[in-house]
Amino acid sequence: MCALVVGRLHGLLWAMAEWGKHLAGVEGLVLDISGVLYDSGGEGGGVPIPGSIEAVKKIKTSGLKLRFCTNETQATRDKFVGKLQHLGFDIGVDEVTAPAPAACRILKERNLRPHLLIHDDLIPEFADIDRANPNCVVVGDAADNFSYKNLNAAFQVLIGLENPVLISLGRGRYYKETDGLKLDVGAYMKALEYACDIQAEVVGKPAKMFFQSALKEMGIEPHQAL
Amino acid sequence: MCALVVGRLHGLLWAMAEWGKHLAGVEGLVLDISGVLYDSGGEGGGVPIPGSIEAVKKIKTSGLKLRFCTNETQATRDKFVGKLQHLGFDIGVDEVTAPAPAACRILKERNLRPHLLIHDDLIPEFADIDRANPNCVVVGDAADNFSYKNLNAAFQVLIGLENPVLISLGRGRYYKETDGLKLDVGAYMKALEYACDIQAEVVGKPAKMFFQSALKEMGIEPHQAL
Repeated sequence: MCALVVGRLHGLLWAMAEWGKHLAGVEGLVLDISGVLYDSGGEGGGVPIPGSIEAVKKIKTSGLKLRFCTNETQATRDKFVGKLQHLGFDIGVDEVTAPAPAACRILKERNLRPHLLIHDDLIPEFADIDRANPNCVVVGDAADNFSYKNLNAAFQVLIGLENPVLISLGRGRYYKETDGLKLDVGAYMKALEYACDIQAEVVGKPAKMFFQSALKEMGIEPHQAL
Repeated sequence: MCALVVGRLHGLLWAMAEWGKHLAGVEGLVLDISGVLYDSGGEGGGVPIPGSIEAVKKIKTSGLKLRFCTNETQATRDKFVGKLQHLGFDIGVDEVTAPAPAACRILKERNLRPHLLIHDDLIPEFADIDRANPNCVVVGDAADNFSYKNLNAAFQVLIGLENPVLISLGRGRYYKETDGLKLDVGAYMKALEYACDIQAEVVGKPAKMFFQSALKEMGIEPHQAL
């Protein structure tokens, strides 16, 4: 994948124009959402970044394949995409790559039955996953669900396993909300890693596997993507 | 300090007899409490390990100086020692070295005003410490006080400081209670370290400074201690 990092989408369009000569062979685009399409927080859950709604339209009419990548794990994709649509974006649920569905694929592939330490609103994403007699833990941005009791419950599952598997939906340190900075999933991942003397498997940005799965969903190769 | 590690106190007495020839010059003894004098948990808060009550008596009548070291941070020394006395031990509050009083000395020496993330029962140990406008965080085994809200509050203090200082009352991974394994302070220390990209200063076993402070309180040098 080309190493083009842009903070804002109108910046990306500018960069695409500048980089025109490098775009030969590019068939698809992977876009971040928070901080690129919109700023989260406030009433209505966020505000579009000026120019980004139009930019998404332009990319779509250009014929480039488009995929949105997010580390959002406080809501299902349905709910998250609904919010973006409400803000004016032309975006569908099946265009979004998010950690929870990626984790579900891994769980199924490896016959893993998770104990979930996640936000209540994310639980529906795991509806068709067997969670009886858990043999791994999945941790997401659980926010207020990160109680001592709940973290202990996850820890007790892990420490009781012969080969403890901890899957973390991201490794963020913290994020900003309207009422201040908040600890992100990475901090709690580290707590469990230390307590059990293990290394988590991270699903979500910046894990390579996560971007690869976005490309797979577009049906293109890394060298064809931006 | 001589490198003699014993799991149980009657084991120590046996070792002392075996090591008799090495004991010349030894003037003081530093003893662990949990798992050496007594096993915690259950009704009454624990049970004495067979022979340990008598062993403490013997050491005291031998003329050796004696100091007890503990990483207990769920209660004040008063309360903790009261429990041990109730179990039958000849032990006084001024004979115990614990992380909280050691942390208080550091806070005073360095003009640090802590935000406390500790167990409610430990708060009285910090009664004469200025906590207005905090410029550091002290984290102990806060148990149920380790809510998302409380951990965020500590994080927000740290991330807002130019030079974030995190003092951790121990670095334990977990401990056993009658109803199962519980996460210890070390796990939460790691969460805050990761979120703020800092290193905590650990007060308590196995920090060298902690043992040194026990020796200082006995008024003896490391080579005179066991």
